Amino acid sequence: MRAVDLIRKKRDSGEHTREEIDFLVNGYTRGDIPDYQMAAWLMAAWIRKLSPAETTALTRAMLNSGQVFDHSDLPMRKVDKHSTGGVGDNTSLILAPIVAAGGLAVPMISGRGLGHTGGTLDKLEAIPGFDTALSQGDFRRVLRECGLSLIGQTAEIAPADKKIYALRDATSTVENIGLICASIMSKKLAEGIDALVLDVKTGSGAFMHKEEDATRLADVMVETAHSMGKKCVALLTDMSQPLGRMAGHSNEVIEAVDCLKGAGPDDLRELSIELSAWMFYLGERAKSVDDGRSLANEMVVSGKALERFRACIGLQGGDERVIDDHSRLPGAKFQAIVTSPRTGYLAATRCRDFGIALAMLEGGRGKKEDRIDHGVGLEFHKRIGDRVLAGEKLATIQYNSEAKLADAQRLISDSFEYSEQPVPAPPLIRRVIGG
Amino acid sequence: MRAVDLIRKKRDSGEHTREEIDFLVNGYTRGDIPDYQMAAWLMAAWIRKLSPAETTALTRAMLNSGQVFDHSDLPMRKVDKHSTGGVGDNTSLILAPIVAAGGLAVPMISGRGLGHTGGTLDKLEAIPGFDTALSQGDFRRVLRECGLSLIGQTAEIAPADKKIYALRDATSTVENIGLICASIMSKKLAEGIDALVLDVKTGSGAFMHKEEDATRLADVMVETAHSMGKKCVALLTDMSQPLGRMAGHSNEVIEAVDCLKGAGPDDLRELSIELSAWMFYLGERAKSVDDGRSLANEMVVSGKALERFRACIGLQGGDERVIDDHSRLPGAKFQAIVTSPRTGYLAATRCRDFGIALAMLEGGRGKKEDRIDHGVGLEFHKRIGDRVLAGEKLATIQYNSEAKLADAQRLISDSFEYSEQPVPAPPLIRRVIGG
Repeated sequence: MRAVDLIRKKRDSGEHTREEIDFLVNGYTRGDIPDYQMAAWLMAAWIRKLSPAETTALTRAMLNSGQVFDHSDLPMRKVDKHSTGGVGDNTSLILAPIVAAGGLAVPMISGRGLGHTGGTLDKLEAIPGFDTALSQGDFRRVLRECGLSLIGQTAEIAPADKKIYALRDATSTVENIGLICASIMSKKLAEGIDALVLDVKTGSGAFMHKEEDATRLADVMVETAHSMGKKCVALLTDMSQPLGRMAGHSNEVIEAVDCLKGAGPDDLRELSIELSAWMFYLGERAKSVDDGRSLANEMVVSGKALERFRACIGLQGGDERVIDDHSRLPGAKFQAIVTSPRTGYLAATRCRDFGIALAMLEGGRGKKEDRIDHGVGLEFHKRIGDRVLAGEKLATIQYNSEAKLADAQRLISDSFEYSEQPVPAPPLIRRVIGG
Repeated sequence: MRAVDLIRKKRDSGEHTREEIDFLVNGYTRGDIPDYQMAAWLMAAWIRKLSPAETTALTRAMLNSGQVFDHSDLPMRKVDKHSTGGVGDNTSLILAPIVAAGGLAVPMISGRGLGHTGGTLDKLEAIPGFDTALSQGDFRRVLRECGLSLIGQTAEIAPADKKIYALRDATSTVENIGLICASIMSKKLAEGIDALVLDVKTGSGAFMHKEEDATRLADVMVETAHSMGKKCVALLTDMSQPLGRMAGHSNEVIEAVDCLKGAGPDDLRELSIELSAWMFYLGERAKSVDDGRSLANEMVVSGKALERFRACIGLQGGDERVIDDHSRLPGAKFQAIVTSPRTGYLAATRCRDFGIALAMLEGGRGKKEDRIDHGVGLEFHKRIGDRVLAGEKLATIQYNSEAKLADAQRLISDSFEYSEQPVPAPPLIRRVIGG
């Protein structure tokens, strides 16, 4: 088999066998296939697309390029959730403790934020001392002791994905459903889980703006998981405005704790419960999603979920006192507000721009190497469909440096759209795929 | 400007500006743009295609990446011919002396054979002592003294093409009309010529089997030359069977000398005269192609063309005596024949396979690094349309080693196709494009 022939095959819209995909992925990971051949193949695959069978083969090859965790020493089922990312999406911090409290194990390996999206690892690192780079032994120990552990990707997990992703980034071959699916699923399935719930975002703050594209991605991811013998559903959820009221790292830890205390914004609490319910159902801790929902609510009301979160923070070296004393989290020295220029109904937001404004204030990353200020944040006071008056507060900016404040303020202000007529609030959960 | 954005633009079927093409070609040649980004761009360009304007910009950028000869010290116009290659195509050795004898300069920079096709440089090197790697000074001196000089590509000519071609070869991005055109034309226009005649082959021994594809390539090359201010026509000519009766290096030198003496096979002599006629016309040495044809014939009949060839061989260090004493050329020790298995009409040939059979006998190259035996060759005794009898000789194989003789013999034998019914001989010149 020769790489040049496989490039030609994909260029000419051929479908690869599993052996051919293995040859490409293994050869590239070992360094036998050079970057330039993989780059040509990626562009051919981007344009000609990957079939479901090719996507599964690619996922499997990338998964098998590294270590796959085996948690079979733990008696309970292992489940996880993956979100395709957005603004203010901190459900992981809420549902992982809920699901662990309900009797399943959540061995969650998360990523960092980039561009307009936040990342779970960065949010956890707002908690002083919280270590997201545990050794494998410590990861297992924390999981065993409190039912959840939250770490970052290690060098041992899906090295093929790491190498291919860097190349895709440099060759404009990122936004392809088969390639995205294989990248996500190869990392998630390395966690050694039995079931996975996908939260596929759609709307102006999501990678996939259009519901149609998000649906196709969800379909392919669910199909890939099924063909690899894993239970999986995808919830297609709204990202046409920030989830919850807060964006920013300390802010989102606080909001997650609020939800675990039974308070917090309705949309964030509702989505976290819904995702937990599906995790319980797929993890066979509940006979139905309804039963799962009840179990999830019970874990919140009883305080058991909050106690799991506290335990996890402690076991991972973090300061548990942040749960009751938010002043122990990094904060912002100054505040600025964004007001409505007119009276009307809030009709839409360019949600992605909120994430970019936050990154301007150093609350996110433009480039992978950028440092983050965990203390800065945004708070949103209005939702789509709300009536707003001219001069009324739409958002509060919590900042530490004036450097790009004016730019961020302008970007946020320009991201709200208005209507004379009443506008319905967008539904939070649009569809369930594979359920 | 960033390479990653230009890759995305071509991926999304955008059309590049001249500045964007310059950025890519110059950046890649300098090493600022890595192989993997150029590979991704090449695949996007292969699939999405290049517009005529992009093709011209690419040709120009590749041309300007290196040295462009300036022969303005010579009073006559400078012309050349380029063939897209085939089996037994040695018209360069015939027409260059004809055109030089007729008063134009032919500063010909040629390539080597690869795969099933032969190369002018290799054919010349069958002549003992012939130096195809002259210094620039010697190239100019030979051109000045005899009106023609024949050398190989130097490191100074179109270095961008050299680097890009190697990458295309490794990434299955060779067969694309815009990329092929830019590669050919950037090298040819570096010769500093005023006019170029293209011999675009079509049929089973050509790179472009289908007349439709060959026509598209010819159209684009002619248009590119015109947009760069050069006179250019393309002759679409037959390569459904070998040109002339001979293939192999010494063989083709002998056949070229025969034609320059007014003998040789009709098809080879006719095509050489026709191409010369167009060169005279474009080079403004003849008022019409008809006049050019007369001038070309006159140069042969008078012996002036042969004298120019003799002078060129001498000036480039070769043994001029080969012209009258073919035994001074490398030869073959043994002969084998291929006979017809049946009676009928010769209907077609898989002409490409003759070239491959010759390479098997070391009369061509499978890989760039392969050495060539200039003495081996093939002689064809029948043409398409000829009546053949069972057992009659179709081809003679002249060989030096038995290693792959049986395989070559079988391949040649299998390459002839027969018909019960009479078959018309294919026309030699199918169309003239841009004339």
